[in-house]
Amino acid sequence: MTTPSTSPRPLRIGMVGYGFMGAAHSHAWRTAHRFFELPLTPVLATLAGRTEATLVAAAERYGFAQTTTRWQDLVEDPEIDVIDICTPGDTHVEIAVAALAAGKHVLCEKPLANSVEESEQMTAAAIAARERSPHGARSMCGFSYRRTPALAYARQLVAEGAVGEIRQVRAQYLQDWLSDADAPMTWRLDRDKAGSGALGDIGAHIVDLTQWITGQQIAAVSGTLQTVVPTRPAAGAAQGLGGTGDASGERRDVTVDDLALFTARFETGVLGSFEATRMAQGRKNAMRVEINGSAGSIAFDFERMNELEVYDATAPAGRQGFTRILATEPEHPYAGHWWPTGHGLGYEHTFTHQIADLVTAIGEGTDPSPSFEEALQVQRVLAAVEASAGDGSSWRSTDPGTTPESTR
Amino acid sequence: MTTPSTSPRPLRIGMVGYGFMGAAHSHAWRTAHRFFELPLTPVLATLAGRTEATLVAAAERYGFAQTTTRWQDLVEDPEIDVIDICTPGDTHVEIAVAALAAGKHVLCEKPLANSVEESEQMTAAAIAARERSPHGARSMCGFSYRRTPALAYARQLVAEGAVGEIRQVRAQYLQDWLSDADAPMTWRLDRDKAGSGALGDIGAHIVDLTQWITGQQIAAVSGTLQTVVPTRPAAGAAQGLGGTGDASGERRDVTVDDLALFTARFETGVLGSFEATRMAQGRKNAMRVEINGSAGSIAFDFERMNELEVYDATAPAGRQGFTRILATEPEHPYAGHWWPTGHGLGYEHTFTHQIADLVTAIGEGTDPSPSFEEALQVQRVLAAVEASAGDGSSWRSTDPGTTPESTR
Amino acid sequence: MTTPSTSPRPLRIGMVGYGFMGAAHSHAWRTAHRFFELPLTPVLATLAGRTEATLVAAAERYGFAQTTTRWQDLVEDPEIDVIDICTPGDTHVEIAVAALAAGKHVLCEKPLANSVEESEQMTAAAIAARERSPHGARSMCGFSYRRTPALAYARQLVAEGAVGEIRQVRAQYLQDWLSDADAPMTWRLDRDKAGSGALGDIGAHIVDLTQWITGQQIAAVSGTLQTVVPTRPAAGAAQGLGGTGDASGERRDVTVDDLALFTARFETGVLGSFEATRMAQGRKNAMRVEINGSAGSIAFDFERMNELEVYDATAPAGRQGFTRILATEPEHPYAGHWWPTGHGLGYEHTFTHQIADLVTAIGEGTDPSPSFEEALQVQRVLAAVEASAGDGSSWRSTDPGTTPESTR
Amino acid sequence: MTTPSTSPRPLRIGMVGYGFMGAAHSHAWRTAHRFFELPLTPVLATLAGRTEATLVAAAERYGFAQTTTRWQDLVEDPEIDVIDICTPGDTHVEIAVAALAAGKHVLCEKPLANSVEESEQMTAAAIAARERSPHGARSMCGFSYRRTPALAYARQLVAEGAVGEIRQVRAQYLQDWLSDADAPMTWRLDRDKAGSGALGDIGAHIVDLTQWITGQQIAAVSGTLQTVVPTRPAAGAAQGLGGTGDASGERRDVTVDDLALFTARFETGVLGSFEATRMAQGRKNAMRVEINGSAGSIAFDFERMNELEVYDATAPAGRQGFTRILATEPEHPYAGHWWPTGHGLGYEHTFTHQIADLVTAIGEGTDPSPSFEEALQVQRVLAAVEASAGDGSSWRSTDPGTTPESTR
Repeated sequence: MTTPSTSPRPLRIGMVGYGFMGAAHSHAWRTAHRFFELPLTPVLATLAGRTEATLVAAAERYGFAQTTTRWQDLVEDPEIDVIDICTPGDTHVEIAVAALAAGKHVLCEKPLANSVEESEQMTAAAIAARERSPHGARSMCGFSYRRTPALAYARQLVAEGAVGEIRQVRAQYLQDWLSDADAPMTWRLDRDKAGSGALGDIGAHIVDLTQWITGQQIAAVSGTLQTVVPTRPAAGAAQGLGGTGDASGERRDVTVDDLALFTARFETGVLGSFEATRMAQGRKNAMRVEINGSAGSIAFDFERMNELEVYDATAPAGRQGFTRILATEPEHPYAGHWWPTGHGLGYEHTFTHQIADLVTAIGEGTDPSPSFEEALQVQRVLAAVEASAGDGSSWRSTDPGTTPESTR
Repeated sequence: MTTPSTSPRPLRIGMVGYGFMGAAHSHAWRTAHRFFELPLTPVLATLAGRTEATLVAAAERYGFAQTTTRWQDLVEDPEIDVIDICTPGDTHVEIAVAALAAGKHVLCEKPLANSVEESEQMTAAAIAARERSPHGARSMCGFSYRRTPALAYARQLVAEGAVGEIRQVRAQYLQDWLSDADAPMTWRLDRDKAGSGALGDIGAHIVDLTQWITGQQIAAVSGTLQTVVPTRPAAGAAQGLGGTGDASGERRDVTVDDLALFTARFETGVLGSFEATRMAQGRKNAMRVEINGSAGSIAFDFERMNELEVYDATAPAGRQGFTRILATEPEHPYAGHWWPTGHGLGYEHTFTHQIADLVTAIGEGTDPSPSFEEALQVQRVLAAVEASAGDGSSWRSTDPGTTPESTR
Repeated sequence: MTTPSTSPRPLRIGMVGYGFMGAAHSHAWRTAHRFFELPLTPVLATLAGRTEATLVAAAERYGFAQTTTRWQDLVEDPEIDVIDICTPGDTHVEIAVAALAAGKHVLCEKPLANSVEESEQMTAAAIAARERSPHGARSMCGFSYRRTPALAYARQLVAEGAVGEIRQVRAQYLQDWLSDADAPMTWRLDRDKAGSGALGDIGAHIVDLTQWITGQQIAAVSGTLQTVVPTRPAAGAAQGLGGTGDASGERRDVTVDDLALFTARFETGVLGSFEATRMAQGRKNAMRVEINGSAGSIAFDFERMNELEVYDATAPAGRQGFTRILATEPEHPYAGHWWPTGHGLGYEHTFTHQIADLVTAIGEGTDPSPSFEEALQVQRVLAAVEASAGDGSSWRSTDPGTTPESTR
Repeated sequence: MTTPSTSPRPLRIGMVGYGFMGAAHSHAWRTAHRFFELPLTPVLATLAGRTEATLVAAAERYGFAQTTTRWQDLVEDPEIDVIDICTPGDTHVEIAVAALAAGKHVLCEKPLANSVEESEQMTAAAIAARERSPHGARSMCGFSYRRTPALAYARQLVAEGAVGEIRQVRAQYLQDWLSDADAPMTWRLDRDKAGSGALGDIGAHIVDLTQWITGQQIAAVSGTLQTVVPTRPAAGAAQGLGGTGDASGERRDVTVDDLALFTARFETGVLGSFEATRMAQGRKNAMRVEINGSAGSIAFDFERMNELEVYDATAPAGRQGFTRILATEPEHPYAGHWWPTGHGLGYEHTFTHQIADLVTAIGEGTDPSPSFEEALQVQRVLAAVEASAGDGSSWRSTDPGTTPESTR
């Protein structure tokens, strides 16, 4: 028998947080180099969290070699190369700034932070790290949906001109786990922790995706926020994102939106309609993006994440229609690394692709995308929506140098 | 051989206009009593239009016994019972008011008129006619889509509580016949004729439908209008609604919107997102309505007009999902009058159903719906959208007694 | 006022039978010339049936000028030009042969007859009529589904080579109105009246369509028939095709199949899989045809009759997929005569198109299709399926000159 | 920092073969215990294969500690607990029998073997191992599709009576990678290696699934096999399952079917239609199963593997239709171990679930399913199809004790 050589260049990961995102990220770190040729091999070194008991169980489950209840240990540990931040948004700025200052690469879950100000601090830290050394710390924000093969292919098609001149954008992120008025209160419904509700948690994705796919930034917005169900049981059994609250017990105030509607004007003048909601009964994870152009359209729904619909207005008359592409062909980004055509991928593959791209960038010494700057721009859009909503839906610029009045 | 008795009670129709709507209406007048038991039998008496040559050909094609180039002839003719107005919106008020004054029943195509003011005049005339005599002239506005079996069933389901408390409304009317920047100028793009663009022509339908299905009126709106392609060839070959313009020739200004986006607040506080566009490349007639509630949802797309999707959140866990109902069963409104289950209906059936209901109402001496009052309310919503759009998307009330400032 | 000239050249129709098919045919006769330019104008002259009371009501409803309880009156009436046979299959041969002998044009509902022998007689009569006079009686069998725009377009695409060399054929006609074991006995389940069950009633359509679309005849078959529910309540309330039987009362034997499965070998060697069933719970009218070829595929489901799915294997890699064509464009057969794009057609339009084509053929002095010869070939396929099923599924030729043994 | 305890009870895996299946299996062995609570922790010990160079690269890629070019080393190694057979079918019998004799647990890819005889040998070995010791070697055949959540839920629904009495079965496995006549020759097209073509490779899955979901065995079949493209380029570039052959070079005979059509009679008399094809242009991995019953239906297509369609004929009239269930809820088998609802799974999850179930069975000392006996029954069905096809499609029993003549 023969023993294969071990991987030559380890990339040691320290992760903070071990909830739903921790599970997805650690799976991706374990899996990426099994399907992609990577210049470095991720090693799950240390998991940080606050509660010792659950932390250790998580570390065993996820495959980390060590644990710590001080995230600062990761920053101080010379053996850690990457710090992966999977905690709620209110903690991002402190960890990320410290990690970058210590020369660590940083992967930070979205939204980048709970405010534009914090996002700006993080972005400044990222830029400073980059300037300190051309081979220094890399930073990336985890808008993982970009790595859905169908969406990455959509971006490519738009860039190639497949839809021609963009006429309009339509984006919805529909979930339903708050439709039940007695679903329990959670940290995601608490402004102090989560920063924002449907807007920040899921609206952020469609802002990022539409800007990324179109290659255009949103210049101004007009929006409305609503908390459809304003109080919820303080206690209850969580299940997935929602759960069943104790309807007979105390109720607490929901301090974030559960429905966000806004219109966006891209820098080119193109209009987009946006909706983020957790009230769309029956829609489980319907993240939908549609781009209509002079020469064609693309349409996507994450509930059928392996499919992209493409309309080609230049096809012969009579033959036009939306083509349902199964984005499982070698020509589709990432797909060729997996299974034969028609054998679909799942949700966690977007994270695996994210890690593959991040590790490649670190190994090659390039800056991964989405950068903190890109994530900051998303944050500015979200903040402008909130400002507009507070202002009777009047148009608000996303440009920090612009005063509200000048934005129409 | 035996000769069947002829129909006992004729209802004599005078129609003004003979374009696309004239074809649909006359088919409905000819067909309704063949599939529905009606108290009166429609007879196509006289067709009015301006251009003698095409008028006579249309009358022959549609089956009218006579023609006239003066619509006033219909009003003055004691043999005419119903005046069916199929002309562009700028002519509605004059014809309708005269017809009602002469005691004729009136069916008027939507939008009721090109302005709130004209709509108010027409509504006043309808009310006056009704008050003059309890057996007098009936009036109806042709929001024919209400008579789609799937949508009429949706309304019934919502009324029965199938979706529970309404959480939000989502409505889109997507077409693409203006995606081509060289599609020619037509009367529908001329504010003087059409009054409004995508907003008034197709947005009107989704405003009417969502109000009708939910049983709630829209109290305020915040919106944006855009003319994505601002000039178009003056000359060109029309085809269907669009066509191919002479790209090398003179161009004229499009004076209406081709894209309308707005958020509506219903009287109960429920929010709705609305979109009317002729720029949605690949979407041919995607009139979509979705109602999300605490107990379920309904979803509809006119491109699959025989289907209604219903989500029942009270179904056993694991068994929940959108049920695709083929609205061709005897339990579905209108459907039982046609073919065996699974044999779909088409666009013109909505008009046939409209005539069946109108003739029944006339025969029974009741007021048909949508009344002019209902159509006026739609007009007020459209006007409020225009006002809001002109005002930087600020919220505007649809209540004529409210000043703009008080509407947030 | 002006009175339009009446239509110059009437085509006087005598119809036998006034059930479901009578309603569909009479609608088509009334409507075709309203949407198509026809050389002759159909006039509903006389309706024949056995039961005076219901006959007269039907004549009034459908718009016939006269009635008779003797179908022979139609044959003998010099004022009748066309005899339209809408009765059960056991009566077709007698009426059709007499009508053709009298020089009448004949439209005969499918299946052409209940046996190959009767079909041969009818075909001989049709040929004799044709040979008697080049301007003589025309004959057509009512495989109306051919006139679905999406299917007529499918045939055109296949003829143009859009699917390349045909690799295989897949056809299903799925209904569910016999899934309920207590649905009542009807004439359609009685071999003496109906000749055959699912095989002859709905299987006939997919045999005709696949032969027509591919341009290839079926040379041999291997099949199985089953009567899944062998007895049914003698009494009950019919509704649509099915209904609710009296489960506590007497039961009668179902003497036809309710499920037919067969494999067909086309003359080129291409294999096709066929299924006709009334046991497919939830499938209301799922007539599905799929043609797979070396260069592409087409797929159709009558439950979405306005859609055709086309796969183009010559499209660029990555861009391939089934394109959902809304067959409502001017380029699609028949569609341009109706509404703007995206405004769908319904079941009865297939009959209206059939009449348009038949009247055009009569006016132009050409032979319409499907001819009785074509319908006879369908009958031979059905008979070969029955023979094969009786023979343990062994292959049977559809060629009348071939003995069973030589067909493998 | 703290170091978590390592997993207490390792289960050491030896795998033979490292192609497409090797990648899927090794991913599953690495991943199952990360998402499921397992009594033993899989350890990738040794990978066996014939070609040293590619073997070592595969071992590194997949994470095996050692390699060997003799599969016998695995059997002889006391440190190996499980032998996982991922080689072509012609090698299964030798490896499996040796492994079972040595007391190893065996997971064998499907089809169990290339012939009924070999399958019988393997089954006998499995039974012998089981009888030797109640705590002895477990055996399982890798019909991994059973572990698709939607299909496992379908089986549960059928068992609960959700479809009532089964009326018929419809199953198709449609692929298109041989539509191109110049796709190259591969081992899968060589009878000596693969045993069978579309029938054995993909038809086996739908035979297994329909028997498993319905709980009924297939008693007799009538079938046809075809090699649509009989010769293929000897040389060419493989890609996925297919590829691009050298059209100008030598061609070799394809010695297996590429299209299999058959009708099956289940032991209860229920009929099923089956199709396995690699000629269905545009269908990438359309494994479709539909069960129609007296009370409902279930329908599935692997191209949308996260969805199950369920029809409930006992729902109120008007509300009936196919419900599209996203099988991502905690109530759906396996799904609760992964992500929030609406976040879909992919192809490889079926393998991970298979490993989770196998490891659980080994740990708990129970026999996993599908057993070799179950896989042998599938093999008998496939053999009966081949016999029937060779016999002019006559019905053939799947019962080894029955002579052909008695099977009708």
